[in-house]
Amino acid sequence: MTSSPLRLCFFGDSMVNGTGDDACLGWVGRACAAARRGGRDITCYNLGIRRDTSEDVLKRWESEAKGRLPADHDGRLVFSFGTNDACPGSDGAPRVAPDRTLTNAEAILAAARAWRPTLMVGPLPICDPIVDARTAELSLRFAGLCDRLGIPFLPVIDIARTSEAWAREVAAGDGAHPNEQGYALIAQAFMRWPPWKAWVAGPA
Amino acid sequence: MTSSPLRLCFFGDSMVNGTGDDACLGWVGRACAAARRGGRDITCYNLGIRRDTSEDVLKRWESEAKGRLPADHDGRLVFSFGTNDACPGSDGAPRVAPDRTLTNAEAILAAARAWRPTLMVGPLPICDPIVDARTAELSLRFAGLCDRLGIPFLPVIDIARTSEAWAREVAAGDGAHPNEQGYALIAQAFMRWPPWKAWVAGPA
Repeated sequence: MTSSPLRLCFFGDSMVNGTGDDACLGWVGRACAAARRGGRDITCYNLGIRRDTSEDVLKRWESEAKGRLPADHDGRLVFSFGTNDACPGSDGAPRVAPDRTLTNAEAILAAARAWRPTLMVGPLPICDPIVDARTAELSLRFAGLCDRLGIPFLPVIDIARTSEAWAREVAAGDGAHPNEQGYALIAQAFMRWPPWKAWVAGPA
Repeated sequence: MTSSPLRLCFFGDSMVNGTGDDACLGWVGRACAAARRGGRDITCYNLGIRRDTSEDVLKRWESEAKGRLPADHDGRLVFSFGTNDACPGSDGAPRVAPDRTLTNAEAILAAARAWRPTLMVGPLPICDPIVDARTAELSLRFAGLCDRLGIPFLPVIDIARTSEAWAREVAAGDGAHPNEQGYALIAQAFMRWPPWKAWVAGPA
């Protein structure tokens, strides 16, 4: 089976970047490497940025994606953000209010989907009970938004929250990010996800 | 020994991206992972883009770097470009004329160095004799430019041109990019390079 090469842009925050991963792959690199080893020609552009909120992604995703996905190539988009929106700003309130996060997400995802095939992965926890509860609530609201927009959505927060390996790596690391095992867990869930599997398999 | 965390932006072309590498690491990911395993806290932003010339890097590096390297963090820059400048455009001539490439490189590198610590890695071959000869000439001229600007420069073209593994992987791949062994070769040269070793070691 041969399929046309894919060029993928992954936009989001430090969890997309793979911050804390000694292998420098994150879930993004692991999933793309597995697809390549399976015979799918993928070019991976990891555009996760530490501390980025939905507001930050909204401002940059289009110019960064357009420089990487020329019209004559099969370019696609994956987004994952929200955790930094839920983190406290200087006044203790979320850095981005939830309704604003949803408005930003809709602006990003509707424009993305109108341009290229698009997937959304839910936000991840940072092992802070207040922030993680807010992030879980955002993840639920993203699921509803994506359903309405016709964009596949993969919630992953509970995978991380219920994993001892994740908690252990966060504690051994910077207190917020996992290391190789944590990112591998998310990669496994992503690789088992039918919408990603369909991208990797190509046309039937 | 503890050193402050580093955030690094690597700008350039497909060889920076690691295109063709089934491990999805490239020389950039291998070098950063080795530094992390050695105890240095590094966040890696890989900003290589396929087909990017010096002209393309000039247009985007500053906005992409400024979104990733906040003022209160130790952020640094590595550049590697030139191969796509030497590739033929629709008229057969180089996509960017050599003098223009040097002008672009000076504009990029002088501004980079004035802002953050900066390294330059030479361009890589694509197993096309005419293009590779032009790229080799650019690599020599970059060495002179970097010397004048006080920026460390690592030539790597001969490492790739004299490697049987590189040639074999290019032939087995898309005809231009290597795979794991080729990128590992460049990573090894980069990791042995004193300016990079000094970054990884941190203050003595």
